[in-house]
Amino acid sequence: MATLLTGKPVVERLAADLAPRVNALEQAGVTPTLAIVRMGERPDDLSYERTARKRAESLGVAVRLFVLDESAPKEALEAALYEVNQDPSIHGCLLFRPLPAHIDEVQACEQLAPEKDIDGITIASLAAVFTDGDRGFPPATAAACIELLEHYDVPLEGKHVVVVGRSLVVGKPVSMMLLRRNASVTMCHSRTEDLASLCRSADIVICATGRARAFGAEFFSPGQTVLDVGINFDEQGNICGDVDFEAVEPVVGAITPVPGGLGTVTTSVTMAHTVAAAEAALAAREGGR
Amino acid sequence: MATLLTGKPVVERLAADLAPRVNALEQAGVTPTLAIVRMGERPDDLSYERTARKRAESLGVAVRLFVLDESAPKEALEAALYEVNQDPSIHGCLLFRPLPAHIDEVQACEQLAPEKDIDGITIASLAAVFTDGDRGFPPATAAACIELLEHYDVPLEGKHVVVVGRSLVVGKPVSMMLLRRNASVTMCHSRTEDLASLCRSADIVICATGRARAFGAEFFSPGQTVLDVGINFDEQGNICGDVDFEAVEPVVGAITPVPGGLGTVTTSVTMAHTVAAAEAALAAREGGR
Repeated sequence: MATLLTGKPVVERLAADLAPRVNALEQAGVTPTLAIVRMGERPDDLSYERTARKRAESLGVAVRLFVLDESAPKEALEAALYEVNQDPSIHGCLLFRPLPAHIDEVQACEQLAPEKDIDGITIASLAAVFTDGDRGFPPATAAACIELLEHYDVPLEGKHVVVVGRSLVVGKPVSMMLLRRNASVTMCHSRTEDLASLCRSADIVICATGRARAFGAEFFSPGQTVLDVGINFDEQGNICGDVDFEAVEPVVGAITPVPGGLGTVTTSVTMAHTVAAAEAALAAREGGR
Repeated sequence: MATLLTGKPVVERLAADLAPRVNALEQAGVTPTLAIVRMGERPDDLSYERTARKRAESLGVAVRLFVLDESAPKEALEAALYEVNQDPSIHGCLLFRPLPAHIDEVQACEQLAPEKDIDGITIASLAAVFTDGDRGFPPATAAACIELLEHYDVPLEGKHVVVVGRSLVVGKPVSMMLLRRNASVTMCHSRTEDLASLCRSADIVICATGRARAFGAEFFSPGQTVLDVGINFDEQGNICGDVDFEAVEPVVGAITPVPGGLGTVTTSVTMAHTVAAAEAALAAREGGR
C-alpha cells in the first residue's frame, strides 16, 4: 500500500498560513483580489472557475470575473487585460488557457503586467524561474508540485526526479524549481526512448502529459514517489490522472490521487500568490509615500 | 579508439558559411563588428581575447576593445556598455566574466542591449532559450555544443543526454536546446547522488563543471559520445578538460579533445552570432527606410 499524498493537508496548511496575512491586509484596507479572465464556456474552465471561486471565498480573496465571448477579437482580450493592469484593487490575474485558436497566446500573455502575473504566464516570470531570479511567481501547477513535496518532507537534495512533459505550465518550470532545490532532473516527453526504464530509475516521477492513465505499472518501481499532475476525463467521463492509479498504487511508495491531489493544491497556490501580490502592492504603495 | 570530435572541421564549415555573408554585408557597407568589454587583465581573459581577435580577423569581423581597470566603478562599466549600445557600427558584444567582485554581474549584463547580446547574457536572451522563443542568441558555449553535435551527425531525437553543471553559461541553456531537439535531458551537478551511474546510463554526456580531469573512466560506458566543455589548467599549468582524456578515450565511442574541441567552436559561434546580429541590424535599417 502506497502512502497517499492527498492535497487536503497541504491546502489546510496553506490556509492556516494565509489567514493572518489576509487579516493584516484587511486591516490595511486591502482585500486581496484575483481577476479571472475567461474566453468562451469550456466545461473545464467553468469547473475550475467554480472551484477557484469557492476556495477564494473561504480564504478571504475576492474574485473579479472578466468573461469574453469565445469569438471575441484579440482587442477585446487586450482591453480586459489592460483593465486588470490599470485597476489597483486587482492584485493577481488568472487567464484561462488554451485561448481560442484565433488569439496569439504568447502575445496575449505578454499583455499582463508582470507584478499581477500570479500564474507565471509572462516571459518575465518564466525567465525568473529559469535564471533563479527572485521576482515574479512561477506557474501555479509547478509551484503546487513543490509545495506538496515539501509538505510531505520528500527529500529532493541529490535525488533523481524524472519529469514527463515539457510544457511551460508544468514540466519545464517544475524541472527548474527542483534543480534549484538540488535535485537531479531528467526532462522527458513524447519522443523519449525507453521512457519506462528512465521512469523506473528515478526516486521521484512527475507525470504531466495530459494523457489519461497513460502510465501503467511498468513505469514504476518500489519505493518511488509519484506526482500525477494530469486532470483528464476517461471514456466514461470520469476524472482521472495521467497515472493508472489502480495498477500503480500497489507498486510505488507514495502517490498523489486524482482527484484530491495536486489540483486542489494548485488552486490554493493561486490564492497564495494573489495574497503575496497584494502584500507586494501594499508594500510598494507604502514605500512610495 | 574513440572517434575524436575535433573542433577544426566545425570551425571550417562555419567559416565557409560566413564568408559569403560577410561579403554581402561589406557590399552593403557594413563591417560586422564585435565589441569586447574586459575589466582587468586576467590571464584567461587575455588568452581568449587573443584567440577571438585572430579568429575575427580571419573571418572579416572587426573587433573593438573596451578595457577597464579591474577596480573601475560600475558606472565606468555602464558607460562602456552604453557606448556599445549607442554605436550603430557595433553589432555584438562579448563581456568577459566573471566580473570583479564589486560589480553586480546580473545587473551589469542587463545593461547590454538585447539585440547586441551575442553571448546570451541578458535575461531576454535566456528567457528565449527557456521558452523556445525566436529572438536573441543563446550563450555561445551552449550553442557550440549543439553545432558540434549536429556537425558530427550525433543523433539527438529521443536520446538520453546527461549534462553535468547547471550554469547559465552552459548547463541550463544547452539542456533547453537539447530538449528542443527532442533529446531527453538529465541536469546534474555537484549535489547529484550517484553521478557516475547516471552518466554511464546516457547516450551523450556533456561535462561542464570546470573541474580539471574530474571525470574518470568510471563515469562512462562503451559507445557514448562525450563533450568536454571544461578549459582548465592542471598543476603543471597544462590546459585540460573536465574529463580525464587519457583514461576515458579508450572507453567511449566519441569524445571532444581539450584543447582543439569545443573552445575553438565557441569562438567561431561568437563570430557567427555577430554576423547574424549585423545582418539583423542591416535588415532593420532597410526595413525602416
